[in-house]
Amino acid sequence: MAQSAGAFVPGHVTGFFSAHQDDDPTKAGSRGAGVAVDEGVVVRLEPGDGLELNGEPATIDAIDRVLDALGATARVIVETDLPLGAGFGVSGAAALGTAFATNAVFGRELSENELVTIAHGSEVQAGTGLGDVVAQARGGFPIRLEPGAPAHGAMDGIPDRRPIEYVNFGELSTAEILTSDTDELTAAGTRALSALVAEPTVETFMAASRRFSREADLLTTPVEEAIRAVSETGGEAAMAMLGETVFALDDGLSEAGYDAERCERVYRGLSQRAAGRAA
Amino acid sequence: MAQSAGAFVPGHVTGFFSAHQDDDPTKAGSRGAGVAVDEGVVVRLEPGDGLELNGEPATIDAIDRVLDALGATARVIVETDLPLGAGFGVSGAAALGTAFATNAVFGRELSENELVTIAHGSEVQAGTGLGDVVAQARGGFPIRLEPGAPAHGAMDGIPDRRPIEYVNFGELSTAEILTSDTDELTAAGTRALSALVAEPTVETFMAASRRFSREADLLTTPVEEAIRAVSETGGEAAMAMLGETVFALDDGLSEAGYDAERCERVYRGLSQRAAGRAA
Repeated sequence: MAQSAGAFVPGHVTGFFSAHQDDDPTKAGSRGAGVAVDEGVVVRLEPGDGLELNGEPATIDAIDRVLDALGATARVIVETDLPLGAGFGVSGAAALGTAFATNAVFGRELSENELVTIAHGSEVQAGTGLGDVVAQARGGFPIRLEPGAPAHGAMDGIPDRRPIEYVNFGELSTAEILTSDTDELTAAGTRALSALVAEPTVETFMAASRRFSREADLLTTPVEEAIRAVSETGGEAAMAMLGETVFALDDGLSEAGYDAERCERVYRGLSQRAAGRAA
Repeated sequence: MAQSAGAFVPGHVTGFFSAHQDDDPTKAGSRGAGVAVDEGVVVRLEPGDGLELNGEPATIDAIDRVLDALGATARVIVETDLPLGAGFGVSGAAALGTAFATNAVFGRELSENELVTIAHGSEVQAGTGLGDVVAQARGGFPIRLEPGAPAHGAMDGIPDRRPIEYVNFGELSTAEILTSDTDELTAAGTRALSALVAEPTVETFMAASRRFSREADLLTTPVEEAIRAVSETGGEAAMAMLGETVFALDDGLSEAGYDAERCERVYRGLSQRAAGRAA
């Protein structure tokens, strides 16, 4: 290893999606929308092998596939304050961070699109995600218009930079839901995307996400209660795909009495910031 | 106006480019590569009309076109610490910031791609730039693979986050160079892009940019001297398109004895950071 290097990749919460399987993992993916948050994953490489996740030995299939694709052997150190299995795309972020760090350390001279493609394909083949990687690479409130890695997918974004809060009630298995019958879910996700494309605002995103989680029958009791509580105090909340997690705009969950974590939005090249509001 | 809002858009320095004119301003643009910097332009809207640039009355044709396209009347306040006419894409950044601020204040409910398209088209029609807007919207070290607004263009990026320094010796008129015979320039820009796509690293970007400015016959004496001075101290420098400006990786200009401004890189969703270097 020529040098040591680290990479930060933001977490990403999907509000709604439709699944699009394909034999080519760079064409497989999801349509949908979400929000990239400033909490994320830091990946470092060290000489050796194996994976360490927040100080403990772990296995993330997508990371092994990234290292294989880049022909590299290294010890991968992943650190994150985000909850695992909660819908923040930690495995995708870890795969993408590994791709960037490996490219730097091993001098692979690949472009950003190529590295995103490798991480996306690895995550799809591992069965742990379909759309987080491309959304994390973009930042903001990403809209996945067409599924797949950069050469095949198409993205847009909601021009807003609202902070979010979240509260996590437990884990859901992405792999389990993605391998079950997704027809209903895909129909609901397609309707949600049409609504958002017609009116790309955060309010439409939150409403479309709430409707999606209901129509796709993914709500659990604590999730449903939290969304209702935020709504009753005049806020906007929805369920994170896929985790037993509720996210809300601004301080919606705190206002409703929940002990919530706060994420300022991901800063990226184009950062809109409110400079005060007046009638 | 329902609320006041502001937008920050990063400056962008192009290292090399080829010009691609088209009757459709969303298809016109440039191929090339550059770097988005954390110094940029802040745009605010107030009730009224007219433009204020760093406290002085001014005219930026691209801004008027953005307001027209969005059917809005407002006083636009633009502030920047970047030098004007120096190759940092201030007019493009001001147009893009106006598009985002207007969308928020006037509730236009457009997507990010739509706002980038309006700002890009306005800048092209004003004749003041061909590729800064899409690069500023992306951030990082953007590579413009195909010209035009999001629906037509294609972009990639160099996976690096090196800071740059710059020194400005005077202004060059983008409009004047873009309306003159650009065949030689386009041939040189095409060769530079081929070299960078084959090896997307910052070192290749800087070398390709140096070669481009020589082949396109754009070097001035102070620019040529500064590039040589940085090279002689082991650094990497190139000329900004289009300004009498030299930019260098890391502290290349300071090392060569120049009193240079420093820009840390634009942070975006995907931020690679060096965690130390070791043999």
